[in-house]
Amino acid sequence: MPALSVNAQRLWSNHMRMAEIGPSPEGGSNRPALSALDAEARALLSAWCGQLGLTEERDALGNTFYRRAGSVALPAIAFGSHLDTVPTGGRFDGVSGVLAALEAIRVLTEAGITTKAPLELVNWTNEEGTRFRPAMMGSRVHAGDMTLAEALATRDDDGTTVAAALAAHNLAGPLPPAPRNWAAFLELNIEQGPILEGTGLDIGIVTGTVQARYFQIDVIGAPSHAGPMSMDRRRDSLAAAAEVILASERVGISGEPGGRSSTTWITNSPNARGAVSSITRLHSDVRHEDPARAAEMQTAFLAAIEEIAARRQVRIDVDPYTTFGPVRFDPTVANTLRTVAQARQMTTRDMFAIAGHDAVMAARVCPAAMLFVPSIGGISHNPGEYSSPEQLAKGAQALLDAVLALAG
Amino acid sequence: MPALSVNAQRLWSNHMRMAEIGPSPEGGSNRPALSALDAEARALLSAWCGQLGLTEERDALGNTFYRRAGSVALPAIAFGSHLDTVPTGGRFDGVSGVLAALEAIRVLTEAGITTKAPLELVNWTNEEGTRFRPAMMGSRVHAGDMTLAEALATRDDDGTTVAAALAAHNLAGPLPPAPRNWAAFLELNIEQGPILEGTGLDIGIVTGTVQARYFQIDVIGAPSHAGPMSMDRRRDSLAAAAEVILASERVGISGEPGGRSSTTWITNSPNARGAVSSITRLHSDVRHEDPARAAEMQTAFLAAIEEIAARRQVRIDVDPYTTFGPVRFDPTVANTLRTVAQARQMTTRDMFAIAGHDAVMAARVCPAAMLFVPSIGGISHNPGEYSSPEQLAKGAQALLDAVLALAG
Repeated sequence: MPALSVNAQRLWSNHMRMAEIGPSPEGGSNRPALSALDAEARALLSAWCGQLGLTEERDALGNTFYRRAGSVALPAIAFGSHLDTVPTGGRFDGVSGVLAALEAIRVLTEAGITTKAPLELVNWTNEEGTRFRPAMMGSRVHAGDMTLAEALATRDDDGTTVAAALAAHNLAGPLPPAPRNWAAFLELNIEQGPILEGTGLDIGIVTGTVQARYFQIDVIGAPSHAGPMSMDRRRDSLAAAAEVILASERVGISGEPGGRSSTTWITNSPNARGAVSSITRLHSDVRHEDPARAAEMQTAFLAAIEEIAARRQVRIDVDPYTTFGPVRFDPTVANTLRTVAQARQMTTRDMFAIAGHDAVMAARVCPAAMLFVPSIGGISHNPGEYSSPEQLAKGAQALLDAVLALAG
Repeated sequence: MPALSVNAQRLWSNHMRMAEIGPSPEGGSNRPALSALDAEARALLSAWCGQLGLTEERDALGNTFYRRAGSVALPAIAFGSHLDTVPTGGRFDGVSGVLAALEAIRVLTEAGITTKAPLELVNWTNEEGTRFRPAMMGSRVHAGDMTLAEALATRDDDGTTVAAALAAHNLAGPLPPAPRNWAAFLELNIEQGPILEGTGLDIGIVTGTVQARYFQIDVIGAPSHAGPMSMDRRRDSLAAAAEVILASERVGISGEPGGRSSTTWITNSPNARGAVSSITRLHSDVRHEDPARAAEMQTAFLAAIEEIAARRQVRIDVDPYTTFGPVRFDPTVANTLRTVAQARQMTTRDMFAIAGHDAVMAARVCPAAMLFVPSIGGISHNPGEYSSPEQLAKGAQALLDAVLALAG
């Protein structure tokens, strides 16, 4: 194997170039899935891939595959991530996986190397799931966990469907979303947590994901006047919801270090000055690397909710609308990542992913694994998200080396 | 004084007719201020007043005065309330004061009586303040507590200004909002609380209002990923806001029976699944009949907020954007109400208003007082709001008798 090296400076400047699309005032990125900004980011990626002679294929949900031919008729080695961000996103989550993949292919092209297996750089649609629920929509439909029709009919908060958003920016392709002929899928991302930085390590080898359970919670009280109605006769849905929010936080704290729980979304009605609230809706989740512990956390959360509802005489309906994981990534692919990283004198540790990633869905249909690079302060989904040029380059180097090892 | 009697059946059917405009699915009323439905309700009132030969005058904010001439050039006796409702409103709050005034004038007209002083039936614009903040906007500008320009520039959550809403439905008149030549202003409303029903009394003589202090509260944490970020390093604005909501509730409970406190309004950002919240805004209030106790409640609330901010390492900015009251209504006018009600063998008690009312603003510029009729269960701002035909008629009768006593 030739000692191919990624170009840290080029990799970094590509991040900065991509961050010019949808910059947030605080210095982060705001590129909602299937927005004009997402389309602009995709066009930039397509231009870069075009320069490298890659062949672009797109499916009906906008998942995009940039293919580099191999010398042998083998299943492809695929790798990539996503370009969409949360509204208060940083410049690295998702992007780092796409640009590390681009850098890996660029190094091969510059070195004039053709791998045996074909390579595919993948940009998945709507990983974040903040504009269109659920998260990992593109890879989810690809893996058969959601139908294309369901995905296309999903609406954002303004009532726009995925189908309409795809059409507005001409992002849909002719392929039906479906598993492709892949020998492996690899994804690099920033850790989005504090472990690698805290332990001073270079690379996290992600052996699997936590189990995450998601809940929509409707608190139904009774409207009343916020002045004359005595406190004890109120059935205030917002006050009850406040207790649910704090209960989810307590469950998260009790579940650490392997667990998390939080409430991140709220709507309230009538949400009017002077009116005691009567309908409050929340979205909460519990996550744990051990599914049995995740189930225990859910049980504790539901028990807390039941107690709140009974004491406050409000109705609380809990819809556990989705669970994902745990996923165990492919040990062979993970071992390849570990081996190539250590061969470069990088320090590694095995770890779990606590967030969802496209690789979780890809793992349903082909051998998959992930690697993490450190994110400073564990800060992510935040304009302050940061990984250094050196950290990103180490990750891209490990990705390149693993691709070479797998593609031959 | 002739033994003039209001017509309970007619009064009730007028309520039911008005409730046909903007009915809510649950059987209440939803007539936002300056909406098409508000305009329709106003048109119905104008038609009724036109049948009684009243002269309509309107000011630039849509406050409407239906005038009945007197036999002597005296200051007028004014009485009325408002037709707008909160989104989850009932069929009586506000409407009952307008329709009791209409019934009183109708009885006088049928009896062929001309009072010495002129009479003015008043329909105030935007008492509720839910669509356009603040509450009592029409009477507030009338009383000089807010400029017309400020009121007209106020925007609802969709960005529509009061000026645009007035223009859309042709509701603005030529008069500058200003005090009129009134000897007194009287307002009937439902109690919106449980006291009259609980004590089995007919009429509440409102001697004044509580002091109400309103707060806009901005909780500023830090965005992060709701999965990987460890619980102890989060600065979750929604969890901190949940504690603020519960603190306001505790302050309200500690302030009873004369006090209340609640949080009724929330927005959250990024309000996205998977993202720890970073900016949460609340609206809270504290109310007490004793201003010193209201100040103590505020102090306790602010201390709780400060503790929450310090412990959770979030910033919490509190804007105490408005205070109103206490208002002491005119003792002479209140005594007239008390005297005429007792002369009809109605049972009465003196009480405070805990909500805002237009009479609070009118009291700044002329002698004013209010009377309450019982509301079942204290339920208000709720489709279940209810006062019986008999209770409403007793209130209208007392209003009529007081108007006759004052107008001569």
